[in-house]
Amino acid sequence: MSSARFDSDVYARRLAAAAEATAEAGLAGLVITPGYDLRYLTGSRAQTFERLTALVVPATGAPTVVVPRLELAALRESAVTELGVAVRDWVDGDDPYRLVAEALGGAPAATAVTDAMPALHLLPLAGVLGVVPVLATDVLRRLRMVKDAAEIDALRTAGAAIDRVHERVPEFLVPGRTEADVAADIAKAIVDEGHSEVAFIIVGSGPHGADPHHECSDRELRAGDIVVVDIGGPVEPGYNSDSTRSYSIGEPDPEVARRYAVLQRAQRAAVQAVRPGVTAEQVDAAARDVLAAEGLAEAFVHRTGHGIGLSVHEEPYVVAGNDLPLEPGMAFSVEPGIYFPGQWGARIEDIVIVTDDGVLPVNSRPHELIVVPAGPAATV
Amino acid sequence: MSSARFDSDVYARRLAAAAEATAEAGLAGLVITPGYDLRYLTGSRAQTFERLTALVVPATGAPTVVVPRLELAALRESAVTELGVAVRDWVDGDDPYRLVAEALGGAPAATAVTDAMPALHLLPLAGVLGVVPVLATDVLRRLRMVKDAAEIDALRTAGAAIDRVHERVPEFLVPGRTEADVAADIAKAIVDEGHSEVAFIIVGSGPHGADPHHECSDRELRAGDIVVVDIGGPVEPGYNSDSTRSYSIGEPDPEVARRYAVLQRAQRAAVQAVRPGVTAEQVDAAARDVLAAEGLAEAFVHRTGHGIGLSVHEEPYVVAGNDLPLEPGMAFSVEPGIYFPGQWGARIEDIVIVTDDGVLPVNSRPHELIVVPAGPAATV
Repeated sequence: MSSARFDSDVYARRLAAAAEATAEAGLAGLVITPGYDLRYLTGSRAQTFERLTALVVPATGAPTVVVPRLELAALRESAVTELGVAVRDWVDGDDPYRLVAEALGGAPAATAVTDAMPALHLLPLAGVLGVVPVLATDVLRRLRMVKDAAEIDALRTAGAAIDRVHERVPEFLVPGRTEADVAADIAKAIVDEGHSEVAFIIVGSGPHGADPHHECSDRELRAGDIVVVDIGGPVEPGYNSDSTRSYSIGEPDPEVARRYAVLQRAQRAAVQAVRPGVTAEQVDAAARDVLAAEGLAEAFVHRTGHGIGLSVHEEPYVVAGNDLPLEPGMAFSVEPGIYFPGQWGARIEDIVIVTDDGVLPVNSRPHELIVVPAGPAATV
Repeated sequence: MSSARFDSDVYARRLAAAAEATAEAGLAGLVITPGYDLRYLTGSRAQTFERLTALVVPATGAPTVVVPRLELAALRESAVTELGVAVRDWVDGDDPYRLVAEALGGAPAATAVTDAMPALHLLPLAGVLGVVPVLATDVLRRLRMVKDAAEIDALRTAGAAIDRVHERVPEFLVPGRTEADVAADIAKAIVDEGHSEVAFIIVGSGPHGADPHHECSDRELRAGDIVVVDIGGPVEPGYNSDSTRSYSIGEPDPEVARRYAVLQRAQRAAVQAVRPGVTAEQVDAAARDVLAAEGLAEAFVHRTGHGIGLSVHEEPYVVAGNDLPLEPGMAFSVEPGIYFPGQWGARIEDIVIVTDDGVLPVNSRPHELIVVPAGPAATV
């Protein structure tokens, strides 16, 4: 497993900011089990499940890591050692929840936990603390959402890498090949173009394109198919790409082309709506309004986008009801889609970053429905 | 992604048994988000995170699945459709926790949740229910722990597959090759011998063997190394193998051989202690006592074993303090180890199944320290 991470001063800044946000929220501390929050705060990629590993960040005072003795060696790959975080190791038979309570200062007090903490740990911890914790999301949200310069660089690197993959996708989309054949080529290209691994590959051809979460199948591509290709993966130190383009095997039917053009306008409208102070739901509405005006409201069955960073899906969610005002440094997808069950679907997705006065897309591939040859390749 | 699963009548029996156990526990129902419990109950391998998917099993009445509309297609790969479970789909903007509460009958009442439910869903659910749930582990434990005939067959198939891999390990352990080289060969062998994927590979040579959770590194094997090889993976429909053997590059030092012989006795004593009515901690003590009698108590830094099934680590845990009486059908590892930091370590691990009157190991490779040539292979 890779242990690439930023320099330890990055994590020192994040831990200090997390403690400050914890104090501002009137909480006694944060308890962070393995997952993206732990990785964000320490660079640790720990994945333990039934044995508790937890970073405890009190509102005041030094952080502590509670860790099974077995996991001590793996912990050293994170920035914990350089950061001078206290380490409380435990062995089978000890009560690690009591160690967490001690690291929080002992007295029952309002505590926030990472959103990834499983019930297995949350419920016994709540029992020892004597209070039900709240989600640390509210404390860490702004930190995790507002990317710093190093994170923005990483997202742009990832965006350029997935653009190079999409540039190669037309050569993979040959009638008679299966979605799975195409996905295998894309998987190789994702790694070849600089990702450390494949996070997801959707190749939804013809009616499969109407299922936004279809992955791939043994369906063979054929003339007339619209093919939704939604792909991404992490680039070290772990920031993700995520980009969708739609392809047409041969020239599209005029009604398909008409609807696709509306989708393209909707995606553009949403991107153009992005700037500081605009709310996430206003960006969602910008896409939805364009589709609704052309009678396609019912065809757009999901939110417009999701934040992205260490996790492929994180805050901010670009969805009705989210009145969060955008701030410079926020990064999220803008990916409206239209879906006609049993027939076809299409989606256009770029990752964008909110700048001081507008928006910076990290992807730059054309947004048009990309037409690939329906017949055997012509010999030149 | 594979969707292999048992016939739907297996899941129908499990759902009925889960509802019965829920009623017996005086609970209103279970709420099961994606993870092994969901897979056990329905065959679903859903992996959604931020959008709630939940199986609701009320103590009386029919189960319901609450699922994002986007995930409906994937849900059909599980047994849910054949089982006639009610499906309540939701779209972004809806309150899925309220749908769960409705499926539970509406009134606040004691509810149990799967141990894998993340805080992200558990805390809002607790808010809507008006009560803090308890862990469903207490309700599902016996069901999940006591394997039925089909599960025992699956574990035995997995055990035979990993035995075939260990049979091939000596040929991979050539001085000058790195742990990572060996791990790559083992990964290929794990899949070649019938696993659907690799779950974990530990190749701990020399001092690395003293870290029970070391994975592998670029350390080169050399004469005199003891090498801990702990490997496993799932065999369809998802039951796991997990077996450790220790290898010696060249003949071991006499003191190493002496200590290893004690370990071998400890592992055998623990296996021989297994039968219905004996407690998990008695099995742990059986191994520990043998080591302690020879001054090796401090060298054994972890529990003796863990249950295994769909998950590599599950109940019952064979650990001090677990007074659970064993029952026929329980399956777990027996894996004492001895660790000498900076020097070497060794571990012996078999998966065993409790029978009506004793124990059935699913692994059958020899338990001796397996000596491989320290020099270049002799030409024959």
